[in-house]
Amino acid sequence: MTHEIAVIPGDGIGQEVTPAAVEVLEALEIDFEFVEADAGDAVKAETGEALPQETYDLAASADATLFGAAGETAADVILPLRTAVDSFVNVRPAKAYPGVDAVRPETDLIFLRENTEGVYAGHEDRLTQDVSTLTRVVTESASERLADFACDYVAGDDHDGFSIVHKANVMRETDGLFRDTVKRVADDNGVETDEVLMDAFATRVCLDPEQFDVIVCPNLAGDVLSDLAAGLVGGLGLLPSANIGPDRALFEPVHGTAPDIAGQGVANPAATIISAAMLLEYLGYDEASEDVHEAVEATLEDGPRTPDLGGDASTEDVTKAIIDRL
Amino acid sequence: MTHEIAVIPGDGIGQEVTPAAVEVLEALEIDFEFVEADAGDAVKAETGEALPQETYDLAASADATLFGAAGETAADVILPLRTAVDSFVNVRPAKAYPGVDAVRPETDLIFLRENTEGVYAGHEDRLTQDVSTLTRVVTESASERLADFACDYVAGDDHDGFSIVHKANVMRETDGLFRDTVKRVADDNGVETDEVLMDAFATRVCLDPEQFDVIVCPNLAGDVLSDLAAGLVGGLGLLPSANIGPDRALFEPVHGTAPDIAGQGVANPAATIISAAMLLEYLGYDEASEDVHEAVEATLEDGPRTPDLGGDASTEDVTKAIIDRL
Ligand SMILES: CC(C)[C@H](C(=O)O)[C@@H](O)C(=O)O
Ligand SMILES: CC(C)[C@H](C(=O)O)[C@@H](O)C(=O)O
Repeated sequence: MTHEIAVIPGDGIGQEVTPAAVEVLEALEIDFEFVEADAGDAVKAETGEALPQETYDLAASADATLFGAAGETAADVILPLRTAVDSFVNVRPAKAYPGVDAVRPETDLIFLRENTEGVYAGHEDRLTQDVSTLTRVVTESASERLADFACDYVAGDDHDGFSIVHKANVMRETDGLFRDTVKRVADDNGVETDEVLMDAFATRVCLDPEQFDVIVCPNLAGDVLSDLAAGLVGGLGLLPSANIGPDRALFEPVHGTAPDIAGQGVANPAATIISAAMLLEYLGYDEASEDVHEAVEATLEDGPRTPDLGGDASTEDVTKAIIDRL
Repeated sequence: MTHEIAVIPGDGIGQEVTPAAVEVLEALEIDFEFVEADAGDAVKAETGEALPQETYDLAASADATLFGAAGETAADVILPLRTAVDSFVNVRPAKAYPGVDAVRPETDLIFLRENTEGVYAGHEDRLTQDVSTLTRVVTESASERLADFACDYVAGDDHDGFSIVHKANVMRETDGLFRDTVKRVADDNGVETDEVLMDAFATRVCLDPEQFDVIVCPNLAGDVLSDLAAGLVGGLGLLPSANIGPDRALFEPVHGTAPDIAGQGVANPAATIISAAMLLEYLGYDEASEDVHEAVEATLEDGPRTPDLGGDASTEDVTKAIIDRL
């Protein structure tokens, strides 16, 4: 069966790292059909729209999407694309890799971020000259869907359970509903959980990241706390992510467009290639996924390396080295 | 002129570190009148109320309040107490001290946290069985008041300006109003600012805290990001804070009740004593404030030390050593 893969490179180094990840996928000789589409600052400058309707439609119909990065228009691109794939969870692994300078190299975390609501539901009003409001939305159904996913996730691997991170001591009704629902689903599935307030989590993860493993949290908490974990492992440069929906999914590196190095052919393609490995696993190619993960890790360890990791290899050199190791 | 100081020890080690800070203030022989009041889990267990009306009234009329910590009831105690002093800004310095193990010892930050609104304004509803909402409120007037304070703050010391941390790419109207207002006030005062998204801040402060100095941010961002900074400097143990209102203020250590060591007489009083030094500065006793800061720093460096810092001194030993150094 052919899988259709939407490829949306976007802006900046997205134009360099996304084709690199496609090269790796092509090298696996799986029956993929790649369809490319535009999004981001450049297409907005041309057409007035950061996310053309045909790009949205493509992501909404392809089996999986590989996205690079967008510049100023990032929110206008990625938030609708997450909706296009009906993605209810953003899976964000944050682990340190050999060869990468990290303040907490022992960090190895998986964030399961609610991906549809919270402040991102985004009903905002300017009530008066003085007063603006935003309606934060938390539903039982979205919390359940996330919790079901989290229970499957920890069952399928060697995890002891998960931590529910929230701020229900202040957001009693909304984060209270989130916490109670996720806890109930976990209890029903015999999955162990503990609870941590999001501010306490921020302190504790810096002091000792090994006390955490899988973290289930609302949308903005997941955004900020996974970026905090990125800081502990040495930056956004190597972090992949998966936006999972019931029928399709979108994969993207956590890094941005890196305007300072864009166009020079020296961007590190690792995060996007690891995202492609997550795509392979999502589509059921577990062995190929494992191979790509191993090839990337071997390349991070033994080189060649791009300048961000102290080497002088090009994006193309690193991509070739990864393909050679498959 | 006598200053009335409300003293609210609260629960756990609050009962040990708050009297220690009062001892230090008494040793200065300034004309203070200390009035003690109850709040927290213990008084709730007795009377059904975590924050008795007379405690609220005392904080609302005293010149300054020194608060220790509250347990399970923390939010029921500290949020109304912040309202009692009409506190519009929470000043949270996060710096590493000699003798304290820190993952980023070069951290030296001041958070100026909006202290009245954001998600803490807290209008929540359960619309249906499935749907809960919270109305996040951001006003131009509160943002202006905070910005005015921030401009004075950076003028009075050797700061180059401040960073505005927000999430206006998602919360466009509310955090947009916050950002635009703070920036306008800063521009009008000739104060330099830069802008950082709160997720990017979380990454960047771990990678290199020295790129930041004074941070002005909404309420929840300030809560989480200052606790993140606490993680970088080795924990909440030594961090003080000041909740400043137009006519009065409340000072509290950032740490909690530490139930594991409460009642043993070995709690580290440093954070509360540094909070008392901030109280002295607030009331205009700049020299006494400086003396207390120096006595605490000398004691952290040369001992005696409580067990959290690897020593075996008691709260009382450390307090006496600080007083001896005044
Ligand atoms: C670009 C922005 C809207 C986005 C988010 O906040 O989700 C980004 O920070 C991310 O985490 O992917
Ligand atoms: C106890 C809680 C309500 C409080 C807050 O969120 O403000 C605490 O975390 C703090 O930062 O002082």
